[in-house]
Amino acid sequence: MRLSRYFLPTLKETPHEAQIVSHQLMLRAGMIRQASAGIYNWLPLGHAVMQNIEQIVREEQNRAGANELLMPTIQSAELWRQSGRYEDYGKEMLRVRDRHDREMLYGPTNEELITDIFKSGAKSYRDVPALLYQFQWKFRDEVRPRFGVMRGREFLMKDCYSFDADYEGAMAAYRKMFVAYLRTFARMNLKAIPVEAESGPIGGNLSHEFCVLADTGETELFTHRDLIDYDILDRPVDYDTDLRSIVDYWTSHYARTDDTHEQAVFEEQVPADQRVQRRGIEVGHIFYFGTKYSEPLEAYISTREGESVPVHMGSYGIGVSRLVGAIIEAFHDEAGIIWPESVAPFRVGLVNIRSTDSDCRATCDDLHERLQDAGISVLYDDTDESPGAKFAQMDLIGLPWQIVVGPRGVQAGTVELKHRATGERQELSPESALAKLMA
Amino acid sequence: MRLSRYFLPTLKETPHEAQIVSHQLMLRAGMIRQASAGIYNWLPLGHAVMQNIEQIVREEQNRAGANELLMPTIQSAELWRQSGRYEDYGKEMLRVRDRHDREMLYGPTNEELITDIFKSGAKSYRDVPALLYQFQWKFRDEVRPRFGVMRGREFLMKDCYSFDADYEGAMAAYRKMFVAYLRTFARMNLKAIPVEAESGPIGGNLSHEFCVLADTGETELFTHRDLIDYDILDRPVDYDTDLRSIVDYWTSHYARTDDTHEQAVFEEQVPADQRVQRRGIEVGHIFYFGTKYSEPLEAYISTREGESVPVHMGSYGIGVSRLVGAIIEAFHDEAGIIWPESVAPFRVGLVNIRSTDSDCRATCDDLHERLQDAGISVLYDDTDESPGAKFAQMDLIGLPWQIVVGPRGVQAGTVELKHRATGERQELSPESALAKLMA
Repeated sequence: MRLSRYFLPTLKETPHEAQIVSHQLMLRAGMIRQASAGIYNWLPLGHAVMQNIEQIVREEQNRAGANELLMPTIQSAELWRQSGRYEDYGKEMLRVRDRHDREMLYGPTNEELITDIFKSGAKSYRDVPALLYQFQWKFRDEVRPRFGVMRGREFLMKDCYSFDADYEGAMAAYRKMFVAYLRTFARMNLKAIPVEAESGPIGGNLSHEFCVLADTGETELFTHRDLIDYDILDRPVDYDTDLRSIVDYWTSHYARTDDTHEQAVFEEQVPADQRVQRRGIEVGHIFYFGTKYSEPLEAYISTREGESVPVHMGSYGIGVSRLVGAIIEAFHDEAGIIWPESVAPFRVGLVNIRSTDSDCRATCDDLHERLQDAGISVLYDDTDESPGAKFAQMDLIGLPWQIVVGPRGVQAGTVELKHRATGERQELSPESALAKLMA
Repeated sequence: MRLSRYFLPTLKETPHEAQIVSHQLMLRAGMIRQASAGIYNWLPLGHAVMQNIEQIVREEQNRAGANELLMPTIQSAELWRQSGRYEDYGKEMLRVRDRHDREMLYGPTNEELITDIFKSGAKSYRDVPALLYQFQWKFRDEVRPRFGVMRGREFLMKDCYSFDADYEGAMAAYRKMFVAYLRTFARMNLKAIPVEAESGPIGGNLSHEFCVLADTGETELFTHRDLIDYDILDRPVDYDTDLRSIVDYWTSHYARTDDTHEQAVFEEQVPADQRVQRRGIEVGHIFYFGTKYSEPLEAYISTREGESVPVHMGSYGIGVSRLVGAIIEAFHDEAGIIWPESVAPFRVGLVNIRSTDSDCRATCDDLHERLQDAGISVLYDDTDESPGAKFAQMDLIGLPWQIVVGPRGVQAGTVELKHRATGERQELSPESALAKLMA
């Protein structure tokens, strides 16, 4: 992609309304623009990152056996009255009346609707277990939306729902999502720690929050070094097997946020040299809530013995738009963002530092074409900005690799390959630079 | 994908509320369920088709040089007052007040917001041409929503917007989208005819509707056989060249719907043996409207000469959720849907007609794995339904190919490969069936 054809309105100054680093960097890097309070436009660079995150989440949901579907944003109030949550949600719920004066709402979450969908299509034990998920925008009308996409009003969430005949089945689903979440965040280079949590307005009996480590995070996290060191991607997971041992390993170690932390328990359970205290950000939340929705909404199935029972349910959320901010909180420096390769909007930034020079242009055009042919996504700065402005912008937007092409190098047959995360630079022939990126 | 693990609640009866064939088949095939009037849940099968359509549209937008971004669904009323459309839209616009009593709305289209985005990031002639697009849900509060996803209230649209320094630039953008639309629909096996059209509430000076042929379509279309026979995919398109000759070819032939058709003009311009009268469905609409939004919203850029001018704009829509219905209207028979391969939710249906037989199961399991390994998407009916029910369901959901595995064939070392569109069946070894699908 040529920068001259890409809509990337970066900013030189940090907008003063942005208090946290991810909000500042997303505005400066031309990833988002505020549309109204707590509601954002996702510009091409920000949208590309969000799509990459979404795709990782999708692949791991599918791997765990979940089916993707899509529910509408605007729902009828009716089901919410049946579940008893229509009044509970208070002013956070965006309520609407349509032209026929029917009460509607913008879904803040979807337990009611998915229960109704399951009920309309499932009758018996043959139809469970079922895991259904979607990516859909939600609206929660926060009093004071802030911190950019970290606490916006309109936000993208992956929400998955499980349906099982009994408690044991529901626990198996819960464990699948538990493991799928660990894998999902690990694929984004994030270290996620599951923390036992309160259920809040979703309700229920068992719940874990997933906090990812980030020095600038909002939450204080206390845990055992073993959890920090555990690499879930080290071994393949078979979701058809019992996942109890993995989940038990994680839940048997101390892991709490400042909400529930008890220093005495921490010190009793974790040896001093294993204690870890770090900042974190909540990016996922899983719930088991049994028959809380299936009973009032009458989602019953017949068992093998012919008995009619309400299904046992759980729900499993990941804040997709929030993750964009969380990843920046975890990976940035003074100069800007440092994207993990798996979510980077482009893998390579190609910088022509003298675009009026025909040799530089020929070298860049050729590298651009060969990178694209090799399936390596590249943003090619072909503009006539100054070298300093180009370098600063590339560091700001944080692509994992930069190839810098200048007249002196081109004379000598070399380009500079820079690794954004380490700052390491190498003078190489264009061929060697390509080979390194393809390795 | 094993059917036993896939949420596919097909119906045996045609729901009486569905009047047109696409609505009937989408309900019966377990693709959608109504959530409330004119608002649908997209179940896994329907969602998979919509994703495939979206991906084709995306690839062709990108090829034409458009940048993908994403605007929110909920917008402030403010910009709509500036453009003068806040009152114009009447009751079709879903209006909302947030908790602070601010006037908001659910976007029925996005000219105002995108103009504001462009304005915030673009200053001069260097920032044009720009083509920005998104896939986002829209809401239009129709008085009587009907025909399923063909005229729903919440619907998915691809909307693209062009920004240019002058009329000539805007025309070049218009031609790019004109050609991109022809390619997009052709890739879905649809024959699209661009028809000069009224601009309606978008406003403007020039506009074409894209109608795709379907015998059960809503619109009567009159055109020249040359347009029906023209295959846009026959030759590659270079969007950096002048596309005038392609567009002129299309617009120089008679093509009108019953709205604007004049029989005398038709007979004068088209020889009798070249006249074509067919049914069609509108699936896309492109507009050039000059400075209608850039002037009131003050989106000005400076020219090379330092003059400040309002940008010339166009907008370009494709009804993505509507296309799912339109494709079914174009491709179905008595037994159900017949998906074109490019949008099919799975390419192959694998039917085990005796799932209790261990040889049948072994053959199917092996085929399932080998198809997946070859990257061929497959829905494997591993349930214990009767053969008749399985055949009927496979025909209903319309996957392009079926592989039927039964005990007699397995004894003889053969399976049956059926082509859904032609009904053609062949007895083949499993290896030959695989080879045919991979060819």
